[in-house]
Amino acid sequence: MRSSAELAEALRVIVITDRGFAAPRSVAEVVEEALRAGARAIQLRDKSAPARALLEEARQLRHLTRRWNALLFVNDRLDVALAAGADGVHVGPHDLPVADIRAVAPQGFLIGRSAADPLLARQAQEDGADYIGAGPVFPTGTKTDAGEVLGVEVLGRIASSITIPVVGIGGIKPPGAREIARSTDAAGVAVVSAVMAAPDPYQATRELLEPFSIRSGPDPSSPPRSRLT
Amino acid sequence: MRSSAELAEALRVIVITDRGFAAPRSVAEVVEEALRAGARAIQLRDKSAPARALLEEARQLRHLTRRWNALLFVNDRLDVALAAGADGVHVGPHDLPVADIRAVAPQGFLIGRSAADPLLARQAQEDGADYIGAGPVFPTGTKTDAGEVLGVEVLGRIASSITIPVVGIGGIKPPGAREIARSTDAAGVAVVSAVMAAPDPYQATRELLEPFSIRSGPDPSSPPRSRLT
Repeated sequence: MRSSAELAEALRVIVITDRGFAAPRSVAEVVEEALRAGARAIQLRDKSAPARALLEEARQLRHLTRRWNALLFVNDRLDVALAAGADGVHVGPHDLPVADIRAVAPQGFLIGRSAADPLLARQAQEDGADYIGAGPVFPTGTKTDAGEVLGVEVLGRIASSITIPVVGIGGIKPPGAREIARSTDAAGVAVVSAVMAAPDPYQATRELLEPFSIRSGPDPSSPPRSRLT
Repeated sequence: MRSSAELAEALRVIVITDRGFAAPRSVAEVVEEALRAGARAIQLRDKSAPARALLEEARQLRHLTRRWNALLFVNDRLDVALAAGADGVHVGPHDLPVADIRAVAPQGFLIGRSAADPLLARQAQEDGADYIGAGPVFPTGTKTDAGEVLGVEVLGRIASSITIPVVGIGGIKPPGAREIARSTDAAGVAVVSAVMAAPDPYQATRELLEPFSIRSGPDPSSPPRSRLT
């Protein structure tokens, strides 16, 4: 059984994959650097991949995340997440509703939900979401349909309005992560380009984890292997 | 419990949805005409719809198909099929593998698999598929990536090489359906434009059902309501 505190700790940095940003490196290579640096949550996101190719990617990342005792989420495709034995799925407003996922997913399966305001976040929590990705906190080039920039202040309001972990997403680099850790109750940050496009994904992950690690205590370089089991 | 013979009977005509072909009518309108004419299997196919919109469509068709005692399949998205309470999913070579679906789907959940030769069809049967869609039997404009035209002769070889029901797909109109019923062991046909784009979907469905109804016995206009339950 995983407690909310343990989940929050794993969500200090969620590394969201992007093949384009990772290139010419493979996604797996970049993900492994992030895991080595202490990331404990990976979200496989590839909207253009057919289900079979996505399942193969998910299995590869499942192998890596198991080895590093990290959580694996699949974006959108609950079926791929289930088939790959992922820990959960992350969904947005155009994906399956949280309540419908909860109705068909096995017990303990994690559901992350994007939410851009306190009302949506509360609704997602009530529907059974395990964590909220709130954003975009800063301007971002990764998702062109990401909506209005929230800023750290609104992220803080979302985080303090619900009890499940909230992570900020959207244009977050180390200075933004520090600001979020300092001035909000957010559990962490979710990033795409900040790790996927980083020349040194290990170093980038360390810098993103640091502000949340100071706050929460343990050094991310030596996560006890039993933490998530 | 549904027997293979009952399934084969329901698969005499699988009506695959297409919003573009149905327009300006709604997909539901055209589907209802097909159901009224005796179709007992509908496959919701909409590759461009996000999961939430597809789920809404699936629920609408679930309502209609329940009323007409017909099977509902969802193309590709197992998760949407499960959330909508559909009878099954239909998958092709780029979708989730049959064995992986079988591993996570509830007992009795139906899996259709596209297969273009006897070897692939046999493999799908061994992996746990409940029926095979084999094609393209004739040239078709609906799917540009449908592959080499098989002809009725190869369809017949596929149908006689396995024990689960086989339906022909690809460019099938009433004359093609008659040829297939006369010269192969195929259980039926799957069609997109022949019903979806038909000025009179009721009449089109009747004409597609007829050759298989003569062969199998009962009049499709009065299917006993207990047949599939």
